[in-house]
Amino acid sequence: SQAAIAQTYSDRVAALEKEVEALKAENEKSGVIGSFKGGRLGFASKDGDFTFALGGRLFLDTAWADTDDDSRDLGQETFVRAARFAAKGKIYQDWRYKLQYEFVGNGAGGFRDAYLQYHGFKPGGNNLVLSIGNQFMAYGLENMQSAKYIAMMERSAPMVALGQGSRRLGVRADVYGDGWNWAGSIGQRVPGTASPQDDDDPLGLFTKVWFNPVLEKGRMVHLGASLRREELRGNNQGVRLRVRPENQVDGFRTLDTGVMGDSDGFDGANLEAAFTYGSLNLNAEYYWQKYDELENAGANTREEPEFTGGAVTGIYYLTGESRPYTPKMGGTYGAVTPNNPLRGGGIGAWAVSARFSTVDLTDSGIDGGRQDVASIGLNWYPEKRLRFSVNAGWASVDGGPNDGSDPTFLQARTQLEW
Amino acid sequence: SQAAIAQTYSDRVAALEKEVEALKAENEKSGVIGSFKGGRLGFASKDGDFTFALGGRLFLDTAWADTDDDSRDLGQETFVRAARFAAKGKIYQDWRYKLQYEFVGNGAGGFRDAYLQYHGFKPGGNNLVLSIGNQFMAYGLENMQSAKYIAMMERSAPMVALGQGSRRLGVRADVYGDGWNWAGSIGQRVPGTASPQDDDDPLGLFTKVWFNPVLEKGRMVHLGASLRREELRGNNQGVRLRVRPENQVDGFRTLDTGVMGDSDGFDGANLEAAFTYGSLNLNAEYYWQKYDELENAGANTREEPEFTGGAVTGIYYLTGESRPYTPKMGGTYGAVTPNNPLRGGGIGAWAVSARFSTVDLTDSGIDGGRQDVASIGLNWYPEKRLRFSVNAGWASVDGGPNDGSDPTFLQARTQLEW
Amino acid sequence: SQAAIAQTYSDRVAALEKEVEALKAENEKSGVIGSFKGGRLGFASKDGDFTFALGGRLFLDTAWADTDDDSRDLGQETFVRAARFAAKGKIYQDWRYKLQYEFVGNGAGGFRDAYLQYHGFKPGGNNLVLSIGNQFMAYGLENMQSAKYIAMMERSAPMVALGQGSRRLGVRADVYGDGWNWAGSIGQRVPGTASPQDDDDPLGLFTKVWFNPVLEKGRMVHLGASLRREELRGNNQGVRLRVRPENQVDGFRTLDTGVMGDSDGFDGANLEAAFTYGSLNLNAEYYWQKYDELENAGANTREEPEFTGGAVTGIYYLTGESRPYTPKMGGTYGAVTPNNPLRGGGIGAWAVSARFSTVDLTDSGIDGGRQDVASIGLNWYPEKRLRFSVNAGWASVDGGPNDGSDPTFLQARTQLEW
Repeated sequence: SQAAIAQTYSDRVAALEKEVEALKAENEKSGVIGSFKGGRLGFASKDGDFTFALGGRLFLDTAWADTDDDSRDLGQETFVRAARFAAKGKIYQDWRYKLQYEFVGNGAGGFRDAYLQYHGFKPGGNNLVLSIGNQFMAYGLENMQSAKYIAMMERSAPMVALGQGSRRLGVRADVYGDGWNWAGSIGQRVPGTASPQDDDDPLGLFTKVWFNPVLEKGRMVHLGASLRREELRGNNQGVRLRVRPENQVDGFRTLDTGVMGDSDGFDGANLEAAFTYGSLNLNAEYYWQKYDELENAGANTREEPEFTGGAVTGIYYLTGESRPYTPKMGGTYGAVTPNNPLRGGGIGAWAVSARFSTVDLTDSGIDGGRQDVASIGLNWYPEKRLRFSVNAGWASVDGGPNDGSDPTFLQARTQLEW
Repeated sequence: SQAAIAQTYSDRVAALEKEVEALKAENEKSGVIGSFKGGRLGFASKDGDFTFALGGRLFLDTAWADTDDDSRDLGQETFVRAARFAAKGKIYQDWRYKLQYEFVGNGAGGFRDAYLQYHGFKPGGNNLVLSIGNQFMAYGLENMQSAKYIAMMERSAPMVALGQGSRRLGVRADVYGDGWNWAGSIGQRVPGTASPQDDDDPLGLFTKVWFNPVLEKGRMVHLGASLRREELRGNNQGVRLRVRPENQVDGFRTLDTGVMGDSDGFDGANLEAAFTYGSLNLNAEYYWQKYDELENAGANTREEPEFTGGAVTGIYYLTGESRPYTPKMGGTYGAVTPNNPLRGGGIGAWAVSARFSTVDLTDSGIDGGRQDVASIGLNWYPEKRLRFSVNAGWASVDGGPNDGSDPTFLQARTQLEW
Repeated sequence: SQAAIAQTYSDRVAALEKEVEALKAENEKSGVIGSFKGGRLGFASKDGDFTFALGGRLFLDTAWADTDDDSRDLGQETFVRAARFAAKGKIYQDWRYKLQYEFVGNGAGGFRDAYLQYHGFKPGGNNLVLSIGNQFMAYGLENMQSAKYIAMMERSAPMVALGQGSRRLGVRADVYGDGWNWAGSIGQRVPGTASPQDDDDPLGLFTKVWFNPVLEKGRMVHLGASLRREELRGNNQGVRLRVRPENQVDGFRTLDTGVMGDSDGFDGANLEAAFTYGSLNLNAEYYWQKYDELENAGANTREEPEFTGGAVTGIYYLTGESRPYTPKMGGTYGAVTPNNPLRGGGIGAWAVSARFSTVDLTDSGIDGGRQDVASIGLNWYPEKRLRFSVNAGWASVDGGPNDGSDPTFLQARTQLEW
């Protein structure tokens, strides 16, 4: 009968209504949305005000090094170059935090990023980010770049000598609009510079400005300049600069100023340019650093040594990718997504890279030596978060305690992010 | 036609039934419910028998200190005061665990909470919690209080000198009913007290009882008493007590007994009272500690020095909040939820706090000195898990190796929980 | 009217369709499925290509030890025996990774598993797993076994002396089919063996083959053999072998060869058999190790000392469980699931275990001594991931620097996994 059929429909619809209510109630219980974005697990509250993600990196290295004059057989080594763990998230809509620890380190020496940020101010329609904590100071290009995405396996020798001291515990402000960015920061070293009694931790001031006259798909021009002033009062147990030959095989430093004496501090400046055209990316950086008058420096007392360096780095994706770049917060490169990942039967992304760097630590009676390093690399990214690299390098040392010791090296890395 | 309309309904209902089945099947796959409770991410199994949460804290400090007689310029320092990571959860319904590590520490020295608890017994309708592992021993008020929620930035000097040794590896029992609580524990230090050959690790016994004659919204009275007995056999390389002026700027300790000699152990007792009336919270604690006969102590051999201290602490929420308190597991304070959080356009919670503490380490020929410290604080909680604090303090030292050296200090903290 | 009724149905069905759409849309947002499998939280992407899980372990120990001739009172100690944290997952379908850190350790010394695996090759229909990183080398039975699931609380003395060096940074291949398994690996120590200047890290080569002639529910036979070659060049600061009496109470080593001199390396071999019949599980392992000619070894120069050891271990589940075994990746035991867990009102799983081990470090003029250890254990597993153990042991020392010092010990552990 028609009434029976109607009754059946009514029952089925009523049953459905109940089940849908139950499903909605169950969904209500969970306030969290999870996702594997770009291969990394993250969680967000349904209102978007809170997020949380864990992340990590693992760099497994094997390296061989030697001097071509047989003065020193640096040998072969296998080691964990980096193994970091990080927790980060958004809280209360406008705040971000990150706590990152390097397990190869120890205690306070293991901290990397450890900061709180506020994103709630929008002065004049521009973006302002205020950060407090241990973080990259606003200085240079390679200095603010994650080691996961640098072109070669190790940072350049001039950057390590003259652009180093990358993270400090302090405050930083970033303002950016369309095509321009400014960042300024002030900080102190953690772990403290020995925190000697009866003395203050020395301060460092850093500022950087950078522009992107071109920034579109596959095309990028980046121009930047940085300045810093670093106090050395408080740890005047002798100023010294040393440099490795762009590998970590043993403790050998090709350049070494020895203890130069004491100094009140130094000034530094940096010029940087970067350029992307399709699969080609080029970077150039120039470093300058000048110390205040040396004290307790013997014959060099009252000298103001001035050191310089520079590096040119190129990367070319053989498989057609373009190097990902983000203008804000430093102007930095990210993880490349292969056009044809291994998972889909492709060959992943392949890139060749090369760098020439030079650093001169000889000036004003200080003879640290000068080093040029030419290096080439082959990089395979089977997937976005996996990288296998091989680098070969040739260093040339002129002057300093290891004059004429020209190390060569070959190194390989398995790199994993999650 | 009516038949065609009926057919359409039938199809739509059948389609809905299928989709609802699919949704139910998909929901079945996931056995986990996530939530951001009070800003912190956690997960629970659908049957509620298992939970898991990660948590962490970051305290970023800057501090200045000085002596008002210029005998010592303690200087200024910036440092990571605490950076902890914890995993905790419920397993198999009745068990809880927590593993917490302080990254400023090293190896076994970095452990904080690391325990397993059993909640399955309910003797006489009361609650019983059995805990095994590294955990707070049952002693005192401030000692069992998380550093995240103490009123001032640093713990009081008498607590550090006479109520310290907060966590031990051992067992603890908590029993609590309506308005009353008892806890007893026995433990040994981790990392072991040097674990010398041919000797046992020394034991510590602790017990505490506390009551809440008043406990309602905005009203709380807490009264407690604690006893402990600590063996020192096993590390009799000399007993020494030292105290900082309630800041961590450098290694300077205002009070210092020096090595007093050896002792078999000491007895301690504690009285505590706390009181909340609306936005006002007050706490008072008295510490007493008496050593067994000193040995190898020169002129002081056979002496039994007795040290005392006390602290009164107050906090007042200018914005109307009341200090959150939980009676069980110590009688401890929690994170305040601002009435008007920053996120909603409010000013967050603001609180002023103050403390007066005194500790006397001079007795029976031992001249460690006596110190009074008065300190005040201003605290801003823009959101529940964020805290910015500034503290100022004035110490007064009488006797001991730093007689008359009266340090003052100013310190600021950025505090983050997640 | 009939029209009105039809209209009502139409509205209800339309409303349901909308709600179901909304539920489907909400489900789309989340790409992650969570679950508490066997009590452990894990996440997977909906396509199954990515997974992520955190895990950890906590071993809380108390131990007493003594020598029965009163020559040494080893004393009592409480300590954190292990506290590990691990992140692991699948990425991009065919890759697995694990990063595991032991918090009792320091810096690079804290690494345990830290590897990347590729599972994408299936040569001849068999399974092939390629692993790069810090990982167990392919050698022995107990060596490749997780400490969470060994029968006694501590590994056997012969394994520690002659089967140790379990994890290395290197590459490993595992191939396995029906009833057979082969693994080969090559690796170097991390942290590096001092990585002395002008020298290479020494290499170790390991291979193991094992078979399962019987492998069915409650029945298992496992037969295996291993070989290794370890270079010692690079750290020839003297070869030494030492052994504890299967407890960690203090630094006391019953056997000690002292510095034997230098050697180019050693060869090792291992035979292993395991057997499960219902609730009974038995294991036998034989160790052999022979050094290359000693140099700088005084009277022992040119000697090639040869050391041996063996252990027989048994476990019997009083409550009827059978020891879980996985043939691949070493042939290893897992976590037992109690037939009657505590949560359901049962008594959990109970097992008795026993081991006899012997190791002989006296040969070719080297007098390290010989030690036999008999030990028994009682284990309670209230739930799958919880274990409480008590072990008692009696060591007998013959020859070497501690001839006749026969330690006895009693130790207890609270073990938690999550």
